[in-house]
Amino acid sequence: MSRNARHDILFEEVKLGPKTLRNRFWQVPHCNGAGSDRPGFQAMHRGMKAQGGFAAVFTEVCMVAPDSDPMPWVGSKLIDKGDIQNLRLMTDEAHRHGALAGVELTHGSSFCFNAESRMPNRAPSQVPNEMEGMSSAREMSLRDIRKMQRDHVDAALRAREAGFDLLTVFCGLATVPNYFLYPWNNKRTDEYGGSFENRARFTVELMQMMRDEIKDCAIGIRFPIDTLELPFGYGDQGVRAEEDGVKFVELLDDLVDYWDINIGTLNWGEDAGSSRFFETNHEAPYTRVAKRVSKKPIVNVGRFTDPDVMVKAITSGQCDIIGMARPSIADPYLPKKIEEGRYEDIRECIGCNVCVSRWEKGGPPIWCTQNTTAGEEYRRGWHPEIFPQTKQPEPAILIVGAGPAGLECGMVLGRRGYETVQIVDAQPTIGGHLNWVTKLPGFATWKRVIDWRKTQLQLHTRVGIEPNTKLSTEEILSYGAQHIIFATGSKWDTTGMSAPIHDYIVGADASKPEIITPDQYMVEGKAVGKRVTVIDHDAYYMGSALAIELAEKGHHVTYLTHNESVGSYLRFTLEEQRVHMKLMELGVKLLPMQFALSVEGGKVMSVDKWTGAEHECAYDSVMLVTYRKSECAIYDHLQANPDLLRDAGIDSIHLIGDAHTPGMIAQATFSGARLAREFDTEDPDTHLPFIRERRLIGATEADYALGASALSAHIARGV
Amino acid sequence: MSRNARHDILFEEVKLGPKTLRNRFWQVPHCNGAGSDRPGFQAMHRGMKAQGGFAAVFTEVCMVAPDSDPMPWVGSKLIDKGDIQNLRLMTDEAHRHGALAGVELTHGSSFCFNAESRMPNRAPSQVPNEMEGMSSAREMSLRDIRKMQRDHVDAALRAREAGFDLLTVFCGLATVPNYFLYPWNNKRTDEYGGSFENRARFTVELMQMMRDEIKDCAIGIRFPIDTLELPFGYGDQGVRAEEDGVKFVELLDDLVDYWDINIGTLNWGEDAGSSRFFETNHEAPYTRVAKRVSKKPIVNVGRFTDPDVMVKAITSGQCDIIGMARPSIADPYLPKKIEEGRYEDIRECIGCNVCVSRWEKGGPPIWCTQNTTAGEEYRRGWHPEIFPQTKQPEPAILIVGAGPAGLECGMVLGRRGYETVQIVDAQPTIGGHLNWVTKLPGFATWKRVIDWRKTQLQLHTRVGIEPNTKLSTEEILSYGAQHIIFATGSKWDTTGMSAPIHDYIVGADASKPEIITPDQYMVEGKAVGKRVTVIDHDAYYMGSALAIELAEKGHHVTYLTHNESVGSYLRFTLEEQRVHMKLMELGVKLLPMQFALSVEGGKVMSVDKWTGAEHECAYDSVMLVTYRKSECAIYDHLQANPDLLRDAGIDSIHLIGDAHTPGMIAQATFSGARLAREFDTEDPDTHLPFIRERRLIGATEADYALGASALSAHIARGV
Repeated sequence: MSRNARHDILFEEVKLGPKTLRNRFWQVPHCNGAGSDRPGFQAMHRGMKAQGGFAAVFTEVCMVAPDSDPMPWVGSKLIDKGDIQNLRLMTDEAHRHGALAGVELTHGSSFCFNAESRMPNRAPSQVPNEMEGMSSAREMSLRDIRKMQRDHVDAALRAREAGFDLLTVFCGLATVPNYFLYPWNNKRTDEYGGSFENRARFTVELMQMMRDEIKDCAIGIRFPIDTLELPFGYGDQGVRAEEDGVKFVELLDDLVDYWDINIGTLNWGEDAGSSRFFETNHEAPYTRVAKRVSKKPIVNVGRFTDPDVMVKAITSGQCDIIGMARPSIADPYLPKKIEEGRYEDIRECIGCNVCVSRWEKGGPPIWCTQNTTAGEEYRRGWHPEIFPQTKQPEPAILIVGAGPAGLECGMVLGRRGYETVQIVDAQPTIGGHLNWVTKLPGFATWKRVIDWRKTQLQLHTRVGIEPNTKLSTEEILSYGAQHIIFATGSKWDTTGMSAPIHDYIVGADASKPEIITPDQYMVEGKAVGKRVTVIDHDAYYMGSALAIELAEKGHHVTYLTHNESVGSYLRFTLEEQRVHMKLMELGVKLLPMQFALSVEGGKVMSVDKWTGAEHECAYDSVMLVTYRKSECAIYDHLQANPDLLRDAGIDSIHLIGDAHTPGMIAQATFSGARLAREFDTEDPDTHLPFIRERRLIGATEADYALGASALSAHIARGV
Repeated sequence: MSRNARHDILFEEVKLGPKTLRNRFWQVPHCNGAGSDRPGFQAMHRGMKAQGGFAAVFTEVCMVAPDSDPMPWVGSKLIDKGDIQNLRLMTDEAHRHGALAGVELTHGSSFCFNAESRMPNRAPSQVPNEMEGMSSAREMSLRDIRKMQRDHVDAALRAREAGFDLLTVFCGLATVPNYFLYPWNNKRTDEYGGSFENRARFTVELMQMMRDEIKDCAIGIRFPIDTLELPFGYGDQGVRAEEDGVKFVELLDDLVDYWDINIGTLNWGEDAGSSRFFETNHEAPYTRVAKRVSKKPIVNVGRFTDPDVMVKAITSGQCDIIGMARPSIADPYLPKKIEEGRYEDIRECIGCNVCVSRWEKGGPPIWCTQNTTAGEEYRRGWHPEIFPQTKQPEPAILIVGAGPAGLECGMVLGRRGYETVQIVDAQPTIGGHLNWVTKLPGFATWKRVIDWRKTQLQLHTRVGIEPNTKLSTEEILSYGAQHIIFATGSKWDTTGMSAPIHDYIVGADASKPEIITPDQYMVEGKAVGKRVTVIDHDAYYMGSALAIELAEKGHHVTYLTHNESVGSYLRFTLEEQRVHMKLMELGVKLLPMQFALSVEGGKVMSVDKWTGAEHECAYDSVMLVTYRKSECAIYDHLQANPDLLRDAGIDSIHLIGDAHTPGMIAQATFSGARLAREFDTEDPDTHLPFIRERRLIGATEADYALGASALSAHIARGV
């Protein structure tokens, strides 16, 4: 296989002031939970992308001053010597793999609550932040403005000292430059407020100061060129691409070496749009406006995974450089795979936004549904493309269940050199619950979880896949395997047992015709009446997705939930607003903050979460979306009867994915990968410890040396 | 002054198995944001309480296994050698000051999302957690149960190695022992489910295992003896004091050396009750039941600050040991002050729960409204009772404004030896906005912020206080001060400018008779009509507190907010449910998720947050609770005209508290303390850096030595 010539353009060099990009692939700034306080994690996560062919890799937001403290959210920082030292590990890793290292210089202004630094904040005007309502700031005086510009330049100098090549001044979300630019944040009446020129003055002066003091780095701006209409953005109070957006690019063009152009506001699900609501490259109609006036190279993002789409973005005059955040997380080797024409190996982002949700939860390290090694490059020493070969390839391994966990586990075992691995599944099609979840409105892209693993198993392993095979306990015992891995998934509960009440819903029994579970409806096609109440006591997408599905099919839908709006976790995947609006658009009746207690006589009886007040709602059918129960009966039986295993010559049994604990797909694939990567350790059911980048004080020199040598050890291993 | 003899009983020794408490003061486990990853913070925060006379100081929840990972919430951990080493700093500090060190051994079961460890979880039964709906767990097999018990005992052994004297097994909130005990969590049908004896079996076995292996530590249980009625607790599915509660104490009594008894569930505002809704010692009717059957010393909490109440709790047979969390944060020296009869110096907790809110936000270090040094013992090297004496006591300092910031600043300056400090205030009574806030229903306890500072100023400083003195710019310039500190507070905005829309509300003008601000109503007594709409575009207590105040006075109140329920931050102070219920009880009409756009012609026009759908609501009066604006005009004028200052012989001016950035009272008092403690540094407006317990890797030996020596430096300074 070799690269299609039409993709060659992606591998051209691009000049950025004093620096040269080796190709057109650019990992835009994105959070990962590392910051500058987990330097090994940061270095290896970004370094992996450099290794995978990205020509530029960036930090997440990198704070320029102590009063830009977003805790509990995790940004990196360049406010002291220690930060320089820690982030230098990242720039070294980028350089070692031939990439440029970039930093996103940020002052979060009133968005930052300064929970750790406890400093009061600064902003162009004194208006509380819309997301963090408790957070306000002092309206800067002229002296304060100079100090703020100086703080930015000082941080840029520290960035240079840390080895960064690309200095991006962030002018979007909540940062001082865009706070000045947007009437939404700037209510000033002096020379920094009012007219466009006045509102752009802070940034023009800042860029000039930076250029005066720094000649050997490329300096650019990240700028959302359109802040969208209400209720998604700021309407007249932000910038629109054809108005202040393009004017800003024109005004600043001589002062930058590159532009990183996207769209949106702090309501940033319109930028990092989930695949349920946004196609790839959905920002193009806005972002392409910049090229009309700019002479500098321009980066765009667009959840790009298809090289043809990338090429068209360049050849159509939309942009010069392909920016990626989520696709670079799902596949750090995406550029290299295109370069080498290994198109089938590209692990495409599914746009589920689980990565985004980790930042939104405040602090946890990044997770990815597709790339089980994301965030584990340093902590667990995992490499997405390198599978350490086992020294015991002989034993036969049977995996029961070909859903996300089973397929990932089988794939990693196969790539690690296990010679006899067989995956069996009772269904005619592999994929587990994703076979039907992907038929829900908007979920088609999630099919990539299955498709990619299927292809990888075929291309790179000798693992057997046997669908249509429901094994009994006896058949499992006599299968001839020495190790059995149960990846048998979970089923939606048929009784109404759920998180908010920890009890059955009286009358809820899915053997009745009017009580229906998601599995029954989607898999068995159980009939749903005209008036249906969806009881969503789950916390994620299933309840609202089924409400949408049923409303689109013409049912009169009531959506009852204990949550305040739709499935609470959709807030963290940035899908809450779009799902809410879709339900409203379809005429679904919302009953939030309700606990369902009984479903009898055609009525759901529920109580208010806070007050206990009762509420009734009539139905023809009830859809029970309450919780998922693991399918682990055979595993449990065998675990309780070790004699059976011994007699059958079985050395070990294991339980992974939803069959162990129902969770997100990212948890299932991780669970499969984890078992496979640690399968030849002493007790693979007990996870190996990962490296904790512990805050050390009073540790011995030996303890410290242990930590410090870890990164070198990674590198020495050739990872 | 000397101690009243009736308080002597508080200073008796108490035997706890192999250990002896030097008195009856016990800092119960409470989170502070330190965990085992910020060992200096942890050691110095707990050590300060040991120094202040507490006989026992505890960690927060301390996790026993890697699959008990509450991230982003911060617990401590005892899962590896590094944790032992880090927490040993804390036990050393406790011992150095004559206290016993305690640990709260915890496995968070399905409450823990394991965002960092990424391990699947374990629970008695597979039901998702009610708070973290995305978090489920595997139903433990008998083998899993043994492993879980072993994990607890292993952690107890690590605790012993770390130097802990008191090993508390946590059996409350979300922990494995209480998960077994409560039918709410335990749906098992084997010998670990069903009857009370079966549900207690896990804990009985665990305690027996611990006692068999550990003889030289005191071992106890923290147990909420009543999990309350619906909608506050678990009703029939939890434990009630007179039923399973007292039975549990009876059953386990021989296996413990002490009991730490409280009440409540994960909805823990009923335990850590705010002063708006709960009196001191409100748990007594439940907790006193334990003594009826127990022969062991019993700890109770009750937001105790009054030694008479403490004595009565003991002499009435309620408990033996005075447990404190919040009062110990507000005053780590509380025991010592009682011991020495310095009753006026006691800095009483105001029950505002800002400490609690920091945990609830996930991660940030503790804040306290009353004790500005809380959480800063190591980071900034502050001591609540030691005020480093300035070397330049001469210059005259004028503080304009006697609210929380001005009073704290003046008090700390006075205690640091500044000889000429004068606080002036325009109002007849000192206290700033707290003078009227404390008249709102439930807020009387907050008066302690002012009362304590007033007393301290009088007892321990020569600082002058001059109320009834409104100074003009000229009067300030000619006052004779070399330094002027503006602590002039903020006022509620009169135009409707607010966080959600960043714009004026059309028609909102508080010079009209029907448009009213909180200041106008509470201070000036501006009249409010029968039908009043409270527009709450703030995020904290003011909007809902005024809705309650007005409804109690007989107004027909509509409460309109962009939040989902009441002021969003009340969720973090654990007051959301009680405020919500109070509003319902008073017949207040709730309009959540609305942005007010105009108030004209007797109608508020608003739009839905997500969909933009319009809504109208009729009123006679509108109460505008939108945002607070700093009162800083004179400061701004002087800052812009340095000539004026030079001519008047003024060396510096400073801006603190709400006059800089409107915030919580804790931010105002901190701001005053911070300026005062750093007043004689080079540029006191630029905060000195604090110690960042940075995750180190690849740092030089010298960098590390710097960090390690910090704790010794604290200690060497005699802090």
